[in-house]
Amino acid sequence: MSQLVIRNGEIVTASQRYVADIYCEDGTIKAIGPNLDVPAGVEEYDARGKYVFPGFIDPHTHVRLPFMGTMAVDDYESATVAALCGGTTTLIDFCIPERDESPLHAFNTWQEVSQGKACSDFTWHMAVTRFDEEVERELREIVSRGVTSFKVFLAYGGALGVDDAALLGVMKLAKELGVVVTAHCENSEMIDTLQKKLVAEGKIGPEWHEPSRPTYVEAEGTRHFCNLARTTGAEGYIVHLSCEEALKEAVDAQLAGANVWVETLIQHLVLDHTDAERPNFEGAKFVMSPPLRDKSNQDPLWNGFAKGIIATLGSDHAPFDMEQKRMGEDNFCLIPNGIPSLEDRVRVFFTEGVQTGRVDIHRFVDAASTQAAKIFGLFPKKGTIQIGSDADLVVYDPEVKEKLSVETHHMNVDYNPFEGREVQGRCELVTVRGNVQVRDGEFVGQKGIGEFLKRKPKMS
Amino acid sequence: MSQLVIRNGEIVTASQRYVADIYCEDGTIKAIGPNLDVPAGVEEYDARGKYVFPGFIDPHTHVRLPFMGTMAVDDYESATVAALCGGTTTLIDFCIPERDESPLHAFNTWQEVSQGKACSDFTWHMAVTRFDEEVERELREIVSRGVTSFKVFLAYGGALGVDDAALLGVMKLAKELGVVVTAHCENSEMIDTLQKKLVAEGKIGPEWHEPSRPTYVEAEGTRHFCNLARTTGAEGYIVHLSCEEALKEAVDAQLAGANVWVETLIQHLVLDHTDAERPNFEGAKFVMSPPLRDKSNQDPLWNGFAKGIIATLGSDHAPFDMEQKRMGEDNFCLIPNGIPSLEDRVRVFFTEGVQTGRVDIHRFVDAASTQAAKIFGLFPKKGTIQIGSDADLVVYDPEVKEKLSVETHHMNVDYNPFEGREVQGRCELVTVRGNVQVRDGEFVGQKGIGEFLKRKPKMS
Amino acid sequence: MSQLVIRNGEIVTASQRYVADIYCEDGTIKAIGPNLDVPAGVEEYDARGKYVFPGFIDPHTHVRLPFMGTMAVDDYESATVAALCGGTTTLIDFCIPERDESPLHAFNTWQEVSQGKACSDFTWHMAVTRFDEEVERELREIVSRGVTSFKVFLAYGGALGVDDAALLGVMKLAKELGVVVTAHCENSEMIDTLQKKLVAEGKIGPEWHEPSRPTYVEAEGTRHFCNLARTTGAEGYIVHLSCEEALKEAVDAQLAGANVWVETLIQHLVLDHTDAERPNFEGAKFVMSPPLRDKSNQDPLWNGFAKGIIATLGSDHAPFDMEQKRMGEDNFCLIPNGIPSLEDRVRVFFTEGVQTGRVDIHRFVDAASTQAAKIFGLFPKKGTIQIGSDADLVVYDPEVKEKLSVETHHMNVDYNPFEGREVQGRCELVTVRGNVQVRDGEFVGQKGIGEFLKRKPKMS
Amino acid sequence: MSQLVIRNGEIVTASQRYVADIYCEDGTIKAIGPNLDVPAGVEEYDARGKYVFPGFIDPHTHVRLPFMGTMAVDDYESATVAALCGGTTTLIDFCIPERDESPLHAFNTWQEVSQGKACSDFTWHMAVTRFDEEVERELREIVSRGVTSFKVFLAYGGALGVDDAALLGVMKLAKELGVVVTAHCENSEMIDTLQKKLVAEGKIGPEWHEPSRPTYVEAEGTRHFCNLARTTGAEGYIVHLSCEEALKEAVDAQLAGANVWVETLIQHLVLDHTDAERPNFEGAKFVMSPPLRDKSNQDPLWNGFAKGIIATLGSDHAPFDMEQKRMGEDNFCLIPNGIPSLEDRVRVFFTEGVQTGRVDIHRFVDAASTQAAKIFGLFPKKGTIQIGSDADLVVYDPEVKEKLSVETHHMNVDYNPFEGREVQGRCELVTVRGNVQVRDGEFVGQKGIGEFLKRKPKMS
Repeated sequence: MSQLVIRNGEIVTASQRYVADIYCEDGTIKAIGPNLDVPAGVEEYDARGKYVFPGFIDPHTHVRLPFMGTMAVDDYESATVAALCGGTTTLIDFCIPERDESPLHAFNTWQEVSQGKACSDFTWHMAVTRFDEEVERELREIVSRGVTSFKVFLAYGGALGVDDAALLGVMKLAKELGVVVTAHCENSEMIDTLQKKLVAEGKIGPEWHEPSRPTYVEAEGTRHFCNLARTTGAEGYIVHLSCEEALKEAVDAQLAGANVWVETLIQHLVLDHTDAERPNFEGAKFVMSPPLRDKSNQDPLWNGFAKGIIATLGSDHAPFDMEQKRMGEDNFCLIPNGIPSLEDRVRVFFTEGVQTGRVDIHRFVDAASTQAAKIFGLFPKKGTIQIGSDADLVVYDPEVKEKLSVETHHMNVDYNPFEGREVQGRCELVTVRGNVQVRDGEFVGQKGIGEFLKRKPKMS
Repeated sequence: MSQLVIRNGEIVTASQRYVADIYCEDGTIKAIGPNLDVPAGVEEYDARGKYVFPGFIDPHTHVRLPFMGTMAVDDYESATVAALCGGTTTLIDFCIPERDESPLHAFNTWQEVSQGKACSDFTWHMAVTRFDEEVERELREIVSRGVTSFKVFLAYGGALGVDDAALLGVMKLAKELGVVVTAHCENSEMIDTLQKKLVAEGKIGPEWHEPSRPTYVEAEGTRHFCNLARTTGAEGYIVHLSCEEALKEAVDAQLAGANVWVETLIQHLVLDHTDAERPNFEGAKFVMSPPLRDKSNQDPLWNGFAKGIIATLGSDHAPFDMEQKRMGEDNFCLIPNGIPSLEDRVRVFFTEGVQTGRVDIHRFVDAASTQAAKIFGLFPKKGTIQIGSDADLVVYDPEVKEKLSVETHHMNVDYNPFEGREVQGRCELVTVRGNVQVRDGEFVGQKGIGEFLKRKPKMS
Repeated sequence: MSQLVIRNGEIVTASQRYVADIYCEDGTIKAIGPNLDVPAGVEEYDARGKYVFPGFIDPHTHVRLPFMGTMAVDDYESATVAALCGGTTTLIDFCIPERDESPLHAFNTWQEVSQGKACSDFTWHMAVTRFDEEVERELREIVSRGVTSFKVFLAYGGALGVDDAALLGVMKLAKELGVVVTAHCENSEMIDTLQKKLVAEGKIGPEWHEPSRPTYVEAEGTRHFCNLARTTGAEGYIVHLSCEEALKEAVDAQLAGANVWVETLIQHLVLDHTDAERPNFEGAKFVMSPPLRDKSNQDPLWNGFAKGIIATLGSDHAPFDMEQKRMGEDNFCLIPNGIPSLEDRVRVFFTEGVQTGRVDIHRFVDAASTQAAKIFGLFPKKGTIQIGSDADLVVYDPEVKEKLSVETHHMNVDYNPFEGREVQGRCELVTVRGNVQVRDGEFVGQKGIGEFLKRKPKMS
Repeated sequence: MSQLVIRNGEIVTASQRYVADIYCEDGTIKAIGPNLDVPAGVEEYDARGKYVFPGFIDPHTHVRLPFMGTMAVDDYESATVAALCGGTTTLIDFCIPERDESPLHAFNTWQEVSQGKACSDFTWHMAVTRFDEEVERELREIVSRGVTSFKVFLAYGGALGVDDAALLGVMKLAKELGVVVTAHCENSEMIDTLQKKLVAEGKIGPEWHEPSRPTYVEAEGTRHFCNLARTTGAEGYIVHLSCEEALKEAVDAQLAGANVWVETLIQHLVLDHTDAERPNFEGAKFVMSPPLRDKSNQDPLWNGFAKGIIATLGSDHAPFDMEQKRMGEDNFCLIPNGIPSLEDRVRVFFTEGVQTGRVDIHRFVDAASTQAAKIFGLFPKKGTIQIGSDADLVVYDPEVKEKLSVETHHMNVDYNPFEGREVQGRCELVTVRGNVQVRDGEFVGQKGIGEFLKRKPKMS
């Protein structure tokens, strides 16, 4: 395998900050120190004046997502190229069986569409959209194949959602196996009632998506999931928490003994409900669930990151072209949910969080990389910079300023939700297990080298 | 200076875990890696099968404490020896002027009693027990001399406490200078009322200390301090938070925008109010403020550590011999407040937190070392293991079991609050800037080598 | 009809307090004033030095209750006699169809077992244990027959409980019809999981009933029901709220816009979890759901009554003899749930609430009578003392002290949960529509005169 | 004294609703019933189709208010005339000594300016603006003269405010004497800091008044006062609670054992912060403390009234002409605080609360009359309609619509904060102890007949 030495960068992890060289060989970090002696002929990269971060981890993406009658537009190649250009070297995607599909069948499908295509490493959370003895048997098999996190939906009842008995069954199994259960925490039936009421009143535009899923519905779902975690003892993970009300429920439950973690998305930190109110159906670009909220929720979420109350930053990348979004032109309930953000997650967070002083640079690395690795069984192979860890590295130049745009992004979707927004910093060099995949913000590497990361349950 | 190589230990920081050698020279870490080449004659320590932690930091000690008409019984020599034997390589003590004493005068006193006596490094929080123009001038001078944290008391009105106008003045100054304000958050006057009422009812034993300072008083003080932080924009730090009710106030305030951190003590995690009810005045050993609480508060505090909501672990070490405690034999209000714990803080936390699975080992390092360094301007010199940081290291053997006892402890106080409690692990080797101060749990080093740590304000 | 004048009693309603005569004729109050002229021959009752209260209303009884494979032991005669001896002149019972029974069929059954037997007036909440088009049609019919409150169970899934879709359906119907929805707020599936876990661990005694239904489960159910009320706009009523945690959820939801009321039972105010821990299976007498809680919940509940936050006082009367309780001798899950208290509700509340100064005497009348009348469409026919209201009156002598006992009570059950407890006050005279049913605490009246109270929806 | 019979009105109290005649003689209600026989020549008033309410009580007015260097513009004559035209028959004003004034001296001043001038009955809360032995002695004297409620200011430190030691002293005295302590709950020093900061930034207009007293400051003050009540056992009363955040603190504290009541003003229910942002200094009309809040606080306050969580409705009437308001033209801190509303309180509440269905008509009477009477020792003389109570009655025609305006109001102030707002209902007849003071919404009665209401402590 390739060899590489990165000289004189300022190494910043969740708990280090110093200038040193990093020598990578055979995919891992072999040495860290000043003025490292390296074999002749090794590529040298001068990172002076730049940060060297551990490769970022996106704990929440939907690369392949058959959803609401259509299919998200990225594939494992386009998505991982975009991810890498934005500094993300590991994706945790979701493997989601149809309700009547066997989990193993879905697992195999996901293997097929990813192996040999992905340009970064990846793994999945295994969605449980039905729970019976056969499903349980297959889940055990899937865990043994290295997928040690599940996903449940309290929302989308009738489609992806499952009832309380099933949720408790999944979580008891998870507790037994040492698996983390991730959850979408919105109450399905309340939303259904509110949607019908709004549509009946002729409120059909994208701006009505948020009122159909108010914060109290998410807060209740969050509390409910936390209580399921308390009841079973399982470790839980709340995906895409979007509002202060839900965050308070999560924290209260944590203190009361629920072993749960909180993830928030970059979208909820910098976009808000007024984006979904943009005229001429442009608001549809900003339809996702939980929805973009009132701006007053942003400060509490930032504060939650600053103080470590929110553990991880995700993207919930789910790209749909405008033509697909138009499926809901006459009824917001039919707009495919999702706001693409896989590529921009890290840089927007750095710009709005670190540069503004809201979030410490170590907490930034922690939230965008280390914590996800710890929670999902990838640490310390991923998520840090130490002797022996995978040589997934990001050389980041904080002085470069760029404007985000659909014109320049690498995601396979025809709009950018952050269009025109200036970010501070560029990924000058991005490596995956020592392979240089990105230079100067552009993909220059080998396609298909991304590996499926086989994980181990926490107790084994 | 001395050279040392620690071989094959499992290095564990807040965000690393790997086996490697550490080479120390001239007080700092020069190299980390496998099979390090070191100069001939360098002492080699074999840490195989043991953890190597960054030196622990106690953010809250009272080595020299003239208080309630008496004086705590440790001095900088005995206290730092005890600290080192327990793995603590840096103390943040409190410099507390009498109400009519000039801050600089107190600063000089603290310099005198510590320089040349301390066996570990140290610094202080500067207590502000009066606030006027002269005090402000001297505080500016003291900050320029490297003390970049203040301490205020909402409790102890009439003695150490100051009123709201003074608190706001101190915090505005802190905001201007980039200084952190630490605070004891109990309402002085309410306690006074409750104490008088209890004593008038003949309730004079140590078991009445807690009812005289109920959780609601601490919760309110906590909220009050957080609001002062919001009002001024200053960075705050709540010392010795003892109960769930106060913790919820702190978290709510953090989310609402108060830039505050929370510290909890080892005592509040493992001791409870029933200890203060022990017969024959033994309860007096367990009198401190905020008091030991109902046991039901312990789980929420542990959960707060596990999820990173509580930032740091302190000891509030304040040792008084039983003879001193007896000053309050006829009136609990006169019992000198304090429970000695400087030496045992780290091992009790490791045992009850890490070994039980309640707290992740990285979070343990973070809480007992890294976070304090970050908050109080010592990072990355202290609080982590990286090239260039101070060679403050703890080789910890997690297999050794020992019983804590006044018979064996090194603190200069005639009782141990954890008497008979078994701990898991021993500090096999403890270094301060590369100097071996402790071997096999016993002090073997040089006295007086501890240095005053000159810190810089956050904004400068 | 009978005529009666009650002279010189101190009339106390929710908002009056004065001494006057009350003249009753043809079932209603005809005149109130000093020295009333009444027709010759009218019975005169001297109430000097005693209170005259409006007849008390119990908003929550189970007179006829086929439950858990057995049948509660009172019938409409024995239950109403007991109620009247305790000052309760109106019962709101529950008409509960089996899951596959037609609501109208149950309605007819309840009519049959009550008409001509009841000695006090009564009505029902109509339980909805299944929800489909046929059920909806019959519910409309039942509302038109005068039953304007429904009951839903979040607990007892699989038996009485219904899922969220059904709950929302019921509540939308209730909103349309102007009907109040009462709810048992515990999450069925969580309890099932906890019960199985406890039983598997050999924890089978009555003392494990409470841990199988912890406060967080009730708190979540309470919040969930409140959110269903918000979502649909229906008026809700939380029955038998038992703990501070749930009460806080209810209040928060009320402020947020849920139009819900809170009922608490006399049992939760004065009994606690230690009663369910009594040895030799005596604890089974104290098994009900929600369970008796930790004593620390009692003060918050009393405070809730004092300040009007809790609207009504109920009994949830559900009498099972010890022989029936023994069905659960080997498994607490099989103990028939219920603690008889219909007869003692008012006097225990007066003694522990009014006499102690915890609750104002007007609030006592409000909670035990007026509020239930207002919420459930019986006001001002019932629940107050005014010209034209039903002559349901209680002459109460607050000076009499009595001990409660199975020896003396009138309920048809072989134990009294308040055995040996002293109460202050006795119902000297109790009238139902002017008929003297009780004298000196004993039933002396006519059986079978109780009428079914046909109520009207709030909007019609 | 005058005699009067009001025929066929619909009598509505907090817990009655029926049609009957009311006969008044010698100042009190002598008889209530249908077709009352009354002496010949008695004035008969036909109230058919109209409500008859007990005279409304305003628990919070400032008729005579030397404040911020000027004097409120009403006197006892003009204020009581305005009050009566709006249905308010009893005022509870504030007697406020200057800081160095003796309480008795202030008491005498208030006696002088009111006796013989007031047209309705009245009493005072006695403000305590200093607390020492002499003040305590005089307070005892004042209580014995019939003033059984105190007032303290947590705000206005340096002027009216007192420190915690004084607050606790006042409350212990109140507990001893059976006196209620009313409190203005904002933290003085924080406001001072925020005001200085805003003014320094050039933010001097009336729109900056609210940001200088944010909700968290009021919430904290509310909690603080509640905790003082818990600490001393005194009964407390929170005046003019303005926001959801403070309301939640109050409710939590009530449940935790603080014996406190909550008052909210009509202004905070229907006006909001945007009113204070009106251009050309018109915003100054809407400057009061606590300030008008964000509109999102209104629904929680209405919900609090609906459910009985908020006990009473006040006006905090404090009228200043625009010329006086202009004292703060260059600095919002100098705008005399106050929004006149004594006259319009009842009708605006009826219109926005009862007519909209937000608040039950009985709760309306309770909040605007009965509760204040109960809390402040006026019940049942005032606050209800019963044999023997004072004949303070309001015949209210709910069908009349009127527009509020400075052109037509009777308050002696040159603007009306509700200018142009339509209200539903008019006070057709208003009596004070049987004297007809208002007919058809206009004062027609005798001036100076208002009496000072001598109250008794709760315990005596």
